[in-house]
Amino acid sequence: MTLPASHPMIDGRTADSPLVRAFLGESAGARAERTGRAPSTPVWFMRQAGRSLPEYRERRAGIAMLDACLDPEVASDLTLQPVRRHGVDAAIFFSDIVVPLLLAGVDVRIVPGTGPVLGSPVRTAEDVARLPVLDEGALAPISEGVARTVAALGGTPLIGFAGAPFTLATYLVEGGPSKDHLRARTMMHADPAAWAALLSWAAQVSGAFLRAQVLAGASAAQLFDSWAGALSLADYRAHAAPFSAQTLAPVRDLGVPVVHFGTNTGELLAAMRDVGADVIGVDHRLGLDEANRRLEGRTVLQGNIDPALLGAPWPVLEAHVREVLRRGSQAPAHVLNLGHGVPPSTDPEVLTRIVRLAHGER
Amino acid sequence: MTLPASHPMIDGRTADSPLVRAFLGESAGARAERTGRAPSTPVWFMRQAGRSLPEYRERRAGIAMLDACLDPEVASDLTLQPVRRHGVDAAIFFSDIVVPLLLAGVDVRIVPGTGPVLGSPVRTAEDVARLPVLDEGALAPISEGVARTVAALGGTPLIGFAGAPFTLATYLVEGGPSKDHLRARTMMHADPAAWAALLSWAAQVSGAFLRAQVLAGASAAQLFDSWAGALSLADYRAHAAPFSAQTLAPVRDLGVPVVHFGTNTGELLAAMRDVGADVIGVDHRLGLDEANRRLEGRTVLQGNIDPALLGAPWPVLEAHVREVLRRGSQAPAHVLNLGHGVPPSTDPEVLTRIVRLAHGER
Repeated sequence: MTLPASHPMIDGRTADSPLVRAFLGESAGARAERTGRAPSTPVWFMRQAGRSLPEYRERRAGIAMLDACLDPEVASDLTLQPVRRHGVDAAIFFSDIVVPLLLAGVDVRIVPGTGPVLGSPVRTAEDVARLPVLDEGALAPISEGVARTVAALGGTPLIGFAGAPFTLATYLVEGGPSKDHLRARTMMHADPAAWAALLSWAAQVSGAFLRAQVLAGASAAQLFDSWAGALSLADYRAHAAPFSAQTLAPVRDLGVPVVHFGTNTGELLAAMRDVGADVIGVDHRLGLDEANRRLEGRTVLQGNIDPALLGAPWPVLEAHVREVLRRGSQAPAHVLNLGHGVPPSTDPEVLTRIVRLAHGER
Repeated sequence: MTLPASHPMIDGRTADSPLVRAFLGESAGARAERTGRAPSTPVWFMRQAGRSLPEYRERRAGIAMLDACLDPEVASDLTLQPVRRHGVDAAIFFSDIVVPLLLAGVDVRIVPGTGPVLGSPVRTAEDVARLPVLDEGALAPISEGVARTVAALGGTPLIGFAGAPFTLATYLVEGGPSKDHLRARTMMHADPAAWAALLSWAAQVSGAFLRAQVLAGASAAQLFDSWAGALSLADYRAHAAPFSAQTLAPVRDLGVPVVHFGTNTGELLAAMRDVGADVIGVDHRLGLDEANRRLEGRTVLQGNIDPALLGAPWPVLEAHVREVLRRGSQAPAHVLNLGHGVPPSTDPEVLTRIVRLAHGER
């Protein structure tokens, strides 16, 4: 199966956008040559649709996080806000990695200031066997939200996203956020069969969520394995990577570029690419030149402005962004982003300034 | 200045102990040859004096954490408990990295389930200038607690410890525990002069705390830079390492071995050694064989049983411990430990079993 005939990647709306071109390996130099414009680097920000924006706080007022995710109009409005404000090169669909769990029927809510909290944690083979099957019809609000957003975005691509099974499992097993994900990692070793069943289930629901976004018009897909850095390379390869590959399989055949991101993953970059990613997102800890070396110079990179620098005076931040761009220029192609999500305390003006800098508007 | 004449390292009580010998580079094979006994690996556990032990929970009942640290009798009793129960090769003094801050007059307390919380965070140059000077006389309860413990320990060495300035600064700047230490890392770049003043202050109080423990009889010293892994190598070298070296200076001249540990520090191992450590502690993410390679095969290693495995069935854990021992045997010497602290939920019997395994008692 391929993309539907009216998809923005097919009808050309986004296929030549700087972001999609870069994700597919076109360098800034090659793009400048093709378009006859000055070189620039595409840029977007993880969690750009979020509390750093006053218009976001206004639109979200009185609406619980998961209710906002399931309301196509609200989700679409929130997705579009940072594109309009900052002029970033991509929107990322406003949602949450636990949304497909909720749509499958899992008792999960997002507690402000805490994160996802489960009604009952999933810790045994019996718990895993009781997990509900996702009826793909339940994904309708997601497809509708994406379709609305894509129609409004025109030539700007939308990135769909989903959580990787390991990261989803940390919440499912622990029952909420946790520091070292000890219970989840214990289950991985103590009951590998139940672990595999749990991660296969997560791959199925998360993969369906990602595929629905792409079929409805997303031009790229990003898999978040936020907590993969808690694993050794050996554990990642044996107990996480196969299920990430399983999550990506339903979108691999659609032909949109796939980004893979996690924090603390300096040791895992090649393994994370090898599950089926075109682009690797790098957090602030590792220079993009070194990340490029670890990926044998053959993988597009995304990242990695240190979110902590967003609070520093502009000259300090500007020097840092230029250094990120310089190191990123060693990769086949580079999409500028943060090394993690936008902190809620960020002054949005600073993000707009970074976009101008990346676009070469001095 | 050197150790006082009655110090256990001088009078020989601990100088030939397996732990001190291993810290100073004696391999298990060389030790077996010297002593004529079967090869064994010295072992202790970070946070071995803690809530995993019923006798600990009983002794601590009704006593706040920092009150326990400042009561020489309580601190000594708690320090001795795991040595008596498990037969580990070392005690680590029961205390907390914020104790010297408290003794200097900083308003800090430890909130159960949360961690260290400051009365007022330290965020500006003015805040730093107002930090109190530590009167070394205030360290008397620590010296007394160490002296009592050492007298009771006989030939078993006591490890003194302290927090590294970066990790202390994450609490001081944030006002409590934090996930990415964003405010602290922003200050590092936004106001490097205030940052340096803050970390110099932390080095002074933490170094005095460590030195007091060694002078009172500790046979080794461990510096905890638990959150150093939040930094890139460049930031670590520029904004953290010099102050860790400054913390260790007051004990370097005493001649006891120094261990340096942090989590998520696979990229930082050599830099952490180069601040003045004899032994590098490694967390569960990186195999000791790879850590040894990164340290050019010339540094003693400590670690790195995955704490998540403590909850797995014994055959799974045993295979993991044997694998850690096998990889550790590639280093000049190896002291078995966990990759982080003992989780409170740990069955203490499991720790005793690991000690027997390391000691070759089948």
